[in-house]
Amino acid sequence: MTDEPQLSDTLYRALADRLAAGMASGAFRPGDRLPSVRVLAARENVSVSTAIAAYRELEDRGLIVVRPKSGFFVAAAWRALPEPRMHGTRPPLPSDVGVNGVIMEILEASRDPTVVPLAAASPGPEHMYPAAQVRRELGARLMREPTLATTYRMGAGYEPLRRAIARHAFTYGCLIEPDELVVTNGCMEALTLALRAITRAGQTIAIESPTYFSVLQIVESLGVKVLELPTNPRHGVAFDTLEVVTRTPGAIAALVLMPNFSNPLGGRMPDEAKRRVVELMHQRGIPIVEDDVYGDLHFGDRRPKPMKSWDRHGNVVLCSSFSKTMAPGLRVGWMAPGRFRRDIALLKFTTSVTTSELAQAAVAELLASGSYERHLRKLRAAFARQVARATAVIGESFPQGSRVTRPEGGFVLWVELPERVDAMALFHRALAEGVSIAPGAMFSASGMYPHHIRISCGHTHTAAVDVALRTVGAIAAELASRPAQ
Amino acid sequence: MTDEPQLSDTLYRALADRLAAGMASGAFRPGDRLPSVRVLAARENVSVSTAIAAYRELEDRGLIVVRPKSGFFVAAAWRALPEPRMHGTRPPLPSDVGVNGVIMEILEASRDPTVVPLAAASPGPEHMYPAAQVRRELGARLMREPTLATTYRMGAGYEPLRRAIARHAFTYGCLIEPDELVVTNGCMEALTLALRAITRAGQTIAIESPTYFSVLQIVESLGVKVLELPTNPRHGVAFDTLEVVTRTPGAIAALVLMPNFSNPLGGRMPDEAKRRVVELMHQRGIPIVEDDVYGDLHFGDRRPKPMKSWDRHGNVVLCSSFSKTMAPGLRVGWMAPGRFRRDIALLKFTTSVTTSELAQAAVAELLASGSYERHLRKLRAAFARQVARATAVIGESFPQGSRVTRPEGGFVLWVELPERVDAMALFHRALAEGVSIAPGAMFSASGMYPHHIRISCGHTHTAAVDVALRTVGAIAAELASRPAQ
Repeated sequence: MTDEPQLSDTLYRALADRLAAGMASGAFRPGDRLPSVRVLAARENVSVSTAIAAYRELEDRGLIVVRPKSGFFVAAAWRALPEPRMHGTRPPLPSDVGVNGVIMEILEASRDPTVVPLAAASPGPEHMYPAAQVRRELGARLMREPTLATTYRMGAGYEPLRRAIARHAFTYGCLIEPDELVVTNGCMEALTLALRAITRAGQTIAIESPTYFSVLQIVESLGVKVLELPTNPRHGVAFDTLEVVTRTPGAIAALVLMPNFSNPLGGRMPDEAKRRVVELMHQRGIPIVEDDVYGDLHFGDRRPKPMKSWDRHGNVVLCSSFSKTMAPGLRVGWMAPGRFRRDIALLKFTTSVTTSELAQAAVAELLASGSYERHLRKLRAAFARQVARATAVIGESFPQGSRVTRPEGGFVLWVELPERVDAMALFHRALAEGVSIAPGAMFSASGMYPHHIRISCGHTHTAAVDVALRTVGAIAAELASRPAQ
Repeated sequence: MTDEPQLSDTLYRALADRLAAGMASGAFRPGDRLPSVRVLAARENVSVSTAIAAYRELEDRGLIVVRPKSGFFVAAAWRALPEPRMHGTRPPLPSDVGVNGVIMEILEASRDPTVVPLAAASPGPEHMYPAAQVRRELGARLMREPTLATTYRMGAGYEPLRRAIARHAFTYGCLIEPDELVVTNGCMEALTLALRAITRAGQTIAIESPTYFSVLQIVESLGVKVLELPTNPRHGVAFDTLEVVTRTPGAIAALVLMPNFSNPLGGRMPDEAKRRVVELMHQRGIPIVEDDVYGDLHFGDRRPKPMKSWDRHGNVVLCSSFSKTMAPGLRVGWMAPGRFRRDIALLKFTTSVTTSELAQAAVAELLASGSYERHLRKLRAAFARQVARATAVIGESFPQGSRVTRPEGGFVLWVELPERVDAMALFHRALAEGVSIAPGAMFSASGMYPHHIRISCGHTHTAAVDVALRTVGAIAAELASRPAQ
């Protein structure tokens, strides 16, 4: 994709997103004719070239086809699957967490490099900063700072990096002072430090459901219980349930959420919902641990705000990283720990002293060079395209009764299969065919997702990915059509 | 110091060390005449040039003076202080650990860059790999591996680095397979992972006393108690006490030791003592966590073996890093977790996924390039010299009744001051004069070292360091001479 001026870039993509949303909602059906470029431009009050760009974008995403001399049509392949139902409507109860065994088994089975990787929520290496650029930028920094890495700097991180992160966070509504930040070994260490600082073994934390499996792994390692809250991809965590379960003082030690493009739902909590949750948790004295690692990967116009931007009392511990946007192997994450700053800085020191200065310097240089915003624009377009293509293939090839999320950012899809499909069987069968997927068992401590899977669209939608997705669909269809036992 | 052929290098330094030990033991007194070069060469069965080199080395260390036409004499400044007494002879009891407050206060107070840093056990940046070399080596590796860091590698570390570490460990008697190793964010993360895997809150671990303060910090953060074992710099941890306190099954969850150039004692446990402790702990089913971070920094001829080399049952978790020898800011450590491999690899994954691949690649390249052994030789000579000079200044300027250790490696000295000297008062007074030292309060959970300090000799012995040491000595002398209150 070539670089285009930012204004038009934003405009046409926003329009494409609105049209895609209309298709997803069922307003347009496969084969339907779309408005002409001129009609669209007039109705939406944009230039004709913006309207053309929007259609070209949708064509790129595989959502529409152009028939010369006739116009634009919704692609026949496009079958707007419904969204998954909200789960966990039964009253939630605290569960001990014992999922590490199954999670590590799945991760290890999926590590075969010949397998098509639809399991791990990793961006394809082709989307990451290449070594040549890292070498160049880091080399420049090392030239200017010949003593880099030669001393113990026991502070919370490399100062130029903390300033660059504070500047970046400012662009999406978070006023964070560089001194408040703690740089970590990826977002995982940030989450671990937050939960170690806030919770004690035997306590219970509230989490969204389905949830990012490593949150379950961390709390299992700490002996903490979880209470899984019903979560809707469009509205976020169920506010009423949260209100009820947090009434008893001390019942819930923390709330862990990923409000922007949550993994695995891909949902985005509306701003008003974020504000209300921040307010309620402050009133009840329950800290929020917010994982915003996908926040920069919005498909729409605007970078959504983290909950932290409504936090006036230091009650939100914001955690993020550059693993999904720059390169996972850099292992540079960060956190704005609010009122837990002192405890968390101490825990960071006793856990790993500080984060590799080489890696911190590389990230600082990439952020400061201005290339990051440009890089993000390309990345967002690529992920939006890959998610749209995968959605189309799933619509085409997955069995009747399947449901799929419509994420507005990130790069994962959550698929609810017909009840008869055992996701673990599907996982093993697909792996035998050379495709890895993430079965629902990884995302709940209480086994709530037996016929659900997560599909990662982090890699370029090649022919191999296309075939892999159809293979999963075919196995799922076969499992769905078996007579009940 | 210029590079000399390795054989002679080793020979003359070993001879110098033997002579220095003789002086420290009191066999030679200040002003004593030393044997002539010819007599020494004949007696020690070395060449005359080796004997000359040994004397030159001792002169460099400030231990002897040359009087033209007369010969070699023990320096007048040299006052062989006795070694500190062994502490903790009262029967040890488990203590809760609550030292983080005082430790962080001391570390933060010592961070002022204008202060002469005798507190932190850090090598001077002038001894570390310079950025230019790191840039060159890392650049070479990034050229060959353009996808470095662009993927999540969830294994226990970068494979070429694990192989290089296994080869290095083999040279000092540790047969470790690369697949057994887990690469960590420095030795601190290795120790944290080991203790998280082995212990639970409320349990008690046995440690040497005085002990590396960050071990206290880690166990405090985990809610684990410590039992401080009497430790002698020459014989290591008191075997008989260890035997008694570990009789009751379950009383001790783990033993944490630093048998090679322990911090802060600088002691080296004899091989036979290591073997016996390994054997006893195996019989009792108590894992050993061994911190070998100073092992490469021996002043004598031979790299001492870690306890791990006697471990036949996977009961020893060996932890180390390159922070004291390459550069602290790289944050690359490693562990050989023995029978805890599975649990520790899982904890590493849930704590920080993996270690920065940029940093791992830099270390791998530096190890593989062969420059590490050469670099270590210079480093060991520099630290031996710095320790000897500091010892001489302490002998000259510290109050009557002071005692100081005679480390055979590493770069820290442990000083026992007259009982009247309050080490915390000394710390504050010295800091006000622009010198940081580490007071004994940091090294015990039960306040056993009120009139002890640790002096780091990691930095080149400049005039500023010399003056700083004398300043500490003068303040200590003043505190010692005050009438009892």
